[in-house]
Amino acid sequence: MTYCVAMRLKEGLVMLSDTRTNAGVDHIATFTKMHVCEVPGERVICVLSAGNLAVTQSVIQHVTEGPSTEAGQPSETLLNVPTMFRAAELVGDAIGQVFRTHGEAMKAQDVRFDVNMLVGGQIKGKPMRLFQVYSAGNFIEASEDTPYLQIGEHKYGKPILDRAAHYDTDPNDAIKLALVSMDSTIRSNLTVGPPVDLLVYRRDTFKVGLRRRIGEDDPYFRGIREQWSKALRDAYRAIPRPDWAQ
Amino acid sequence: MTYCVAMRLKEGLVMLSDTRTNAGVDHIATFTKMHVCEVPGERVICVLSAGNLAVTQSVIQHVTEGPSTEAGQPSETLLNVPTMFRAAELVGDAIGQVFRTHGEAMKAQDVRFDVNMLVGGQIKGKPMRLFQVYSAGNFIEASEDTPYLQIGEHKYGKPILDRAAHYDTDPNDAIKLALVSMDSTIRSNLTVGPPVDLLVYRRDTFKVGLRRRIGEDDPYFRGIREQWSKALRDAYRAIPRPDWAQ
Repeated sequence: MTYCVAMRLKEGLVMLSDTRTNAGVDHIATFTKMHVCEVPGERVICVLSAGNLAVTQSVIQHVTEGPSTEAGQPSETLLNVPTMFRAAELVGDAIGQVFRTHGEAMKAQDVRFDVNMLVGGQIKGKPMRLFQVYSAGNFIEASEDTPYLQIGEHKYGKPILDRAAHYDTDPNDAIKLALVSMDSTIRSNLTVGPPVDLLVYRRDTFKVGLRRRIGEDDPYFRGIREQWSKALRDAYRAIPRPDWAQ
Repeated sequence: MTYCVAMRLKEGLVMLSDTRTNAGVDHIATFTKMHVCEVPGERVICVLSAGNLAVTQSVIQHVTEGPSTEAGQPSETLLNVPTMFRAAELVGDAIGQVFRTHGEAMKAQDVRFDVNMLVGGQIKGKPMRLFQVYSAGNFIEASEDTPYLQIGEHKYGKPILDRAAHYDTDPNDAIKLALVSMDSTIRSNLTVGPPVDLLVYRRDTFKVGLRRRIGEDDPYFRGIREQWSKALRDAYRAIPRPDWAQ
């Protein structure tokens, strides 16, 4: 399983993904689910992926290097798409291509064709956007009302986002929110695990603002985990018992 | 959908269920999912149910009034089973009976045979126990290590239980925990909704200690919801920003 969360805020994008993959409980590995295309000064596009690893790796291959077309023919990739909308379309098209290639054989083997991607970024002269692309290749976009999108094992980490993630949240606070949301997920679901990959992009900068791999022993992440657990326990203790109890 | 949570603690049982049922988003209704069999001074058995309403109502009918056997033949029900283990078996057997009666026709209509039940209580002279019974009629039991069980839409409300529910938690504190867990679920999932039904049973009392329907406007529940939201937001604000950010 996987957990990825992305927020499109007034001041920038914050994207976070775990790295655990599993095929059964005895086949666990670490793969990054964050893929960044950067042309400094011109574009940053970050893709987070969830689902069957063979599918997601194929899709990433298609959208970063292009499909294996005839030699010399230039491919459309995330490095040259003209808009973020076209970037989301390209990811959706690549999912469709992989489905046409492997979907039937996967079905014959009872393997679900299962893929979800978050595509966020900005291209010079265009707005910063964030999309979620589904297995069918169609997609939705984050809005000011709902600034965050999640893929994978999303439920454990949703309550704090529902309460505290707003369009005008500062990206540095959104880092905290994303890490708290990730911590809740890691704690309640074994198939989501550290290290986690973080990317922060600030609007109209056209370069990666921060990219960091955060391991289990990272002092800040460990601090968040301890403080958050303590805060939850303290908060529940601080609630008075019902006067109708006893 | 549904959310039910039950805790078997050193001092007693705390069981809580929502009341929302839905067949599609435009067919929403309120049904209790809590069914209590009490023989004061002798036994209390409480069943919480999740899944297809036709199935769960049939199962409850079977275990409270007995199957429609020949007139005069006494039925085995939750009111006369000799042990809690037998109570869980009886619920499992009833699920099997309903499956044999309706399973095939439901499958023909593409309706999932989907049922999960929590069965908790105590019978005079026997230990207090809590079981979760699955669609197949098999079941597991809560332990001192894992004192709580959940059915239905369980993920949103799990993080606080993972952190704060212990075998030696006082039942009055467990009421708070259960309501916080329920609130997180209600807030993040529209198919789980108030009012909620609460039962508290204190070990070796053989009578219902507290049974209460708690509506959206219940001042205590509203207080919990507000305090909990505020506490989460405050806790996240209190976490310092990472010194590597910016």
